[in-house]
Amino acid sequence: MVGTMQQVVLRRYAQGSPRAEDFALVEGPVPVPGDGEVLLKTLWLALDPLIRFAIDEKRLSGVTQVHPGEVMYGPTVSRVVASNHPGYGVGDVVEDRTGWREYAVVAPDKADWRGPPRKLDPGLAPVSTALGALGMPGQTAHACMIGIGRVQAGETVVISAAAGAVGTLAGQIGKVLGARMVGIAGGRAKCAALLELGFDAAVDYKATDFPDQLKAALPGGADVFVDNVGGEVMLAVLPHLKRGARMPVCGFIAYYGMGMEGPGPDRLPGFFRTIMAKGLEVRGFGGFLVGGQQALDDIAGWMREGRIVTPEAVVEGLAAAPDAFAGVFGGNAHVGKLLVRVAAE
Amino acid sequence: MVGTMQQVVLRRYAQGSPRAEDFALVEGPVPVPGDGEVLLKTLWLALDPLIRFAIDEKRLSGVTQVHPGEVMYGPTVSRVVASNHPGYGVGDVVEDRTGWREYAVVAPDKADWRGPPRKLDPGLAPVSTALGALGMPGQTAHACMIGIGRVQAGETVVISAAAGAVGTLAGQIGKVLGARMVGIAGGRAKCAALLELGFDAAVDYKATDFPDQLKAALPGGADVFVDNVGGEVMLAVLPHLKRGARMPVCGFIAYYGMGMEGPGPDRLPGFFRTIMAKGLEVRGFGGFLVGGQQALDDIAGWMREGRIVTPEAVVEGLAAAPDAFAGVFGGNAHVGKLLVRVAAE
Repeated sequence: MVGTMQQVVLRRYAQGSPRAEDFALVEGPVPVPGDGEVLLKTLWLALDPLIRFAIDEKRLSGVTQVHPGEVMYGPTVSRVVASNHPGYGVGDVVEDRTGWREYAVVAPDKADWRGPPRKLDPGLAPVSTALGALGMPGQTAHACMIGIGRVQAGETVVISAAAGAVGTLAGQIGKVLGARMVGIAGGRAKCAALLELGFDAAVDYKATDFPDQLKAALPGGADVFVDNVGGEVMLAVLPHLKRGARMPVCGFIAYYGMGMEGPGPDRLPGFFRTIMAKGLEVRGFGGFLVGGQQALDDIAGWMREGRIVTPEAVVEGLAAAPDAFAGVFGGNAHVGKLLVRVAAE
Repeated sequence: MVGTMQQVVLRRYAQGSPRAEDFALVEGPVPVPGDGEVLLKTLWLALDPLIRFAIDEKRLSGVTQVHPGEVMYGPTVSRVVASNHPGYGVGDVVEDRTGWREYAVVAPDKADWRGPPRKLDPGLAPVSTALGALGMPGQTAHACMIGIGRVQAGETVVISAAAGAVGTLAGQIGKVLGARMVGIAGGRAKCAALLELGFDAAVDYKATDFPDQLKAALPGGADVFVDNVGGEVMLAVLPHLKRGARMPVCGFIAYYGMGMEGPGPDRLPGFFRTIMAKGLEVRGFGGFLVGGQQALDDIAGWMREGRIVTPEAVVEGLAAAPDAFAGVFGGNAHVGKLLVRVAAE
């Protein structure tokens, strides 16, 4: 396996929305596994918005950080191509976070709190779903709707960034639960895709009549607001929440480019006013709150029954990753999970 | 009962912190009760910070509003001095919200959602406690600590505005529950009073070493943060909250003078970042969430057992109300419930 491989390194910390020029594609030697180590060949790389945290100069506690010159961090699905560890055999397919590179060496017995590479069953579902429905985004959507959102049949749920990996899953889980689902996304194409997925209504936040669309879609208000966005879209939804509404906060793409403060005015007074007047329950989504194995089992079951589909947008080749990742923050047109096919399965 | 009485009217909407000049003491006729009505003589008037909402030009939904020229709104304890209603007899003592005046007529059968005048048992406790421990502040403190805060023995709780009516009660309820209680208040005198009430530590937010005091008082972080303040004090506490901490928001005196927006920078990005990183549960305290009769029964029981005391600061006479109310927002020195003795019992 001696040879060279491609990898993407961070050139500089991102300022605001990441740009393709923040990254560089470079060659490096294929690493060699030592005792207890495994050599992985990357098949799939997930371009999660959350990765934005890793490339901020300001460190967020609990988040992996990438410094300029280092290989980019990211969730991956890989095949074992050499193994010096009894738990992993050549040909096994695993999910891990080995980053933007064609090969990586991992030491399963020295894993961090996230655990060693997770072995996948290619017979259960396409292995790429380990980065979406049958992975962290699925667990997040499950917890937002069930564990934290406690969605009941007949309730109304509104979801921002509804066309994303978490949003598309949360919307379909809501339909399984018997809720009325309203999705917010940018552009007509994404809104049409939401209706295809079973959402009862789709609202285009880029449309000039966004406030009217939102009002029309929520005539009786919402019981649950799954927020992935923050910022202006979130502030526009707040007046439509019912008293005592639950609001799981799964992400805040509007704020990813900021540290603790954004340009004024300060919106925190109004947020507190609304929380208080409506008795809202706002629950931040620490990674430690995800739904665990039960969530994966539930979602796998719904997938088998055909009640949940897992849209994916695939970009070909590692060299395309920087552009595609930058596009996430420019409101690109993909629906569902955004993946890079690093190598053919 | 024909004659004149004193009352306080609003002269102009408050801008920022209320000032004594926003109010005027005027004479008016003592009202005459009609069919089904009751004439009440005000004994006690509570100067709750929440009244600030009533005198803002911007209306907050669900809040009683007072317009310039109208008599000020406020919670009261009164004696029935004439009755044309079979449910109320002369001499009965009741709790209601009849405002800043010496007499008021009410129609119990036409009460709003808050209900008719609540008859009090003067043998149970001093009737003024109906405006504090045995009224809405007590129910609020109970819900913050038990219903929403779910405080367990051995946990650490931090409370802002701890020397206020809700804070002093919440702190004592926390000690009943076996928690470690840390109070934040302004000035040495208030902090000393908190320790007298049983708080394990008191932190002075006006001291130059406030951040160090806070850090020293919360070496292991806090499981629950009962926030009555918002603003800089709240932002200083956030870094000390544990993962998954509960945060009942009971008030936000720092923001009362603002509408939905305050001067920049925007602190909402940092708030979302913290909520998410720590998996915080933030629960706004709509008035409809208070603990009901069970809360009052619990607190009355703890009062009888001597486990809860109810500090009061009393101002004499209606004419002193405007100054005293303005003082609430200037960080005056009272501890516990701030009351105006409008007439001797």
